[in-house]
Amino acid sequence: MSVDQTRVRVTEEPLGQIELALAARNHALPLEALAYDVTPSGLHYLLSHYDVPYVALDSWRLTIDGLVDEPLILTLDDLRARPNVTRTVTMECAGNGRALMSPRASGQPWLLGAVGNAVWTGTPLRGVLDDAGVQPDAVEVVFTGTDLGMEDGAIEPYGRSLEVGELGTDEILLVWGMNDAPLLPQHGAPLRLLVPGWYGMASVKWLTSITAVDKPFQGHHQVREYRLRQEPEEPGVPLGRMRVRSLMTPPGVPDYPDRRRYLDTGSHLVRGRAWSGEARIETVELSTNSGASWEPASLGEQTDPRCWREWGWSWRVREPGEYTLICRATDADGRTQPLTDDWNLGGYAANAAQRVEVSVR
Amino acid sequence: MSVDQTRVRVTEEPLGQIELALAARNHALPLEALAYDVTPSGLHYLLSHYDVPYVALDSWRLTIDGLVDEPLILTLDDLRARPNVTRTVTMECAGNGRALMSPRASGQPWLLGAVGNAVWTGTPLRGVLDDAGVQPDAVEVVFTGTDLGMEDGAIEPYGRSLEVGELGTDEILLVWGMNDAPLLPQHGAPLRLLVPGWYGMASVKWLTSITAVDKPFQGHHQVREYRLRQEPEEPGVPLGRMRVRSLMTPPGVPDYPDRRRYLDTGSHLVRGRAWSGEARIETVELSTNSGASWEPASLGEQTDPRCWREWGWSWRVREPGEYTLICRATDADGRTQPLTDDWNLGGYAANAAQRVEVSVR
Repeated sequence: MSVDQTRVRVTEEPLGQIELALAARNHALPLEALAYDVTPSGLHYLLSHYDVPYVALDSWRLTIDGLVDEPLILTLDDLRARPNVTRTVTMECAGNGRALMSPRASGQPWLLGAVGNAVWTGTPLRGVLDDAGVQPDAVEVVFTGTDLGMEDGAIEPYGRSLEVGELGTDEILLVWGMNDAPLLPQHGAPLRLLVPGWYGMASVKWLTSITAVDKPFQGHHQVREYRLRQEPEEPGVPLGRMRVRSLMTPPGVPDYPDRRRYLDTGSHLVRGRAWSGEARIETVELSTNSGASWEPASLGEQTDPRCWREWGWSWRVREPGEYTLICRATDADGRTQPLTDDWNLGGYAANAAQRVEVSVR
Repeated sequence: MSVDQTRVRVTEEPLGQIELALAARNHALPLEALAYDVTPSGLHYLLSHYDVPYVALDSWRLTIDGLVDEPLILTLDDLRARPNVTRTVTMECAGNGRALMSPRASGQPWLLGAVGNAVWTGTPLRGVLDDAGVQPDAVEVVFTGTDLGMEDGAIEPYGRSLEVGELGTDEILLVWGMNDAPLLPQHGAPLRLLVPGWYGMASVKWLTSITAVDKPFQGHHQVREYRLRQEPEEPGVPLGRMRVRSLMTPPGVPDYPDRRRYLDTGSHLVRGRAWSGEARIETVELSTNSGASWEPASLGEQTDPRCWREWGWSWRVREPGEYTLICRATDADGRTQPLTDDWNLGGYAANAAQRVEVSVR
């Protein structure tokens, strides 16, 4: 048997083992799954900083304490008995695109797919906080998960805080359901916080306590991670809402393992989604000439500003050759994706326009 | 604010972009999820060679043709009306462990978690083939998926064959259900083949046709991939059944991003699973001295030889220090995991005993 094995390559080139260990565990949305308005289970991006904890529902309780008039200890049934809200919300990791920055931070090496759109079911956080009665001297509320990690020589749980001023909305939910099913273990079962419009780090998984405090929270993921910095010594700018972004499903057929795209000449519908944590999506544009000119995409309905918006653009390509497609979105506040990202130390908040190379035959 | 940023590292060291693109899309079982007998949705290992295809159920049909007396065209309802079988089956990717081989093949850079255990629901393939009537001159049956890739200059669907002699069993199923729910898109909806005991490449996803042929199938994934070779020119030995293997959940608490493990002195239950595509699991053993001596683990019931077996071992550690835990399994046919793997060009069929480094404090 004659077999052309030129596609089999071996290399001694080092693949960073730390980044690989993270990339193997966590996963992005494969970009063809942008076709689904609601991301099917198991395709939503997933990032667990530490091990996915096993939480026994029988013994699980949510504690609300600290600077409150009435500390509460709630079961999941207690929470389910409260007003129920179901909302479709797009969530993106703050590190999405990190691996495209150079030099890049060590950490989960995301390319572009660290996003997903799910139907979440829960109850507004505000009602629970109102029942507990957050006291006037509280400045932040700290949300603590069950997941544990070694940071700077001590074991601590994942935790994040929100300022009291950010809590005066019914948008923020305590959620137990995702896509009409109980939360999956890896998405924070039995309960997680959901902060619509924000990068995913705010939506604490495996939530176990909510504590009102009178000083800014100093947890590792609040002050050391998830900040925009140029130099390690800076306090940095904390991350919050998702920047405007669009992604396309790369058209054509891929090869393996390279994932280059191949397409025939003709007319092709290029499709994708766009979102912004700040405002509704206003336009999506495409360019095939490195941004010298842009053509507008057609937009679907955006039923909810916290849910991504579908777009489509008909690409007529008559000449074989190598093409680069670029898409960029603009939101209702006039924020447009840049063509290149400003570098930062943690590789956060990238939102440069996506570029997809296609071989047309 | 004084912030120690020594944990933030930047590097110019190249991470192979091809391998990264695959690692970001596909994912392993995080090893702490070995705690679940049935792997929750979204945590089962996932490998898609090409794009996950969107298959419209209304127009989907399964065709059985080629060297058969009675070609069949079946809907999913036709298949569901046949005898239903539900079985819990462990599936592992043939490339599991590839990234630990040196030099390593370009391709999905699996570390150790490319495995999962699911409850599959479907109907025996044999009954469908009997109804079609495979003719005596057929030597193989070819299973073709809907997923398309560019291979050697031409677009072809993913396809695999089984020899007619391998089909005389009711073990092989056509499955539409996974964990009591419809197959998810990424696991082959609406229908996939399930070949229990074999590496996952045999269980063709997004199945669309079954064709009896009179010559060995020459598809890319049959003759170029999934073979044990030392040199590119060899025809190679085709892969089939999963080799005996055990995996443990690394004990203790990890850090991020390194995922090193930290543990206090004392007694700790180390747990995991073991499986073999050839026979039942007979023993699992652990060593803390590089294999100089071994202690037996306790084993759970193995209700089905195609389903992994739980094991546990109590580790008493009195002295702080750096430890390496090693686990290895032996099956009922006397096959034992080796301490190191024999290298092969594609990085296939690795089953060396897992080594986990732990810092005890």
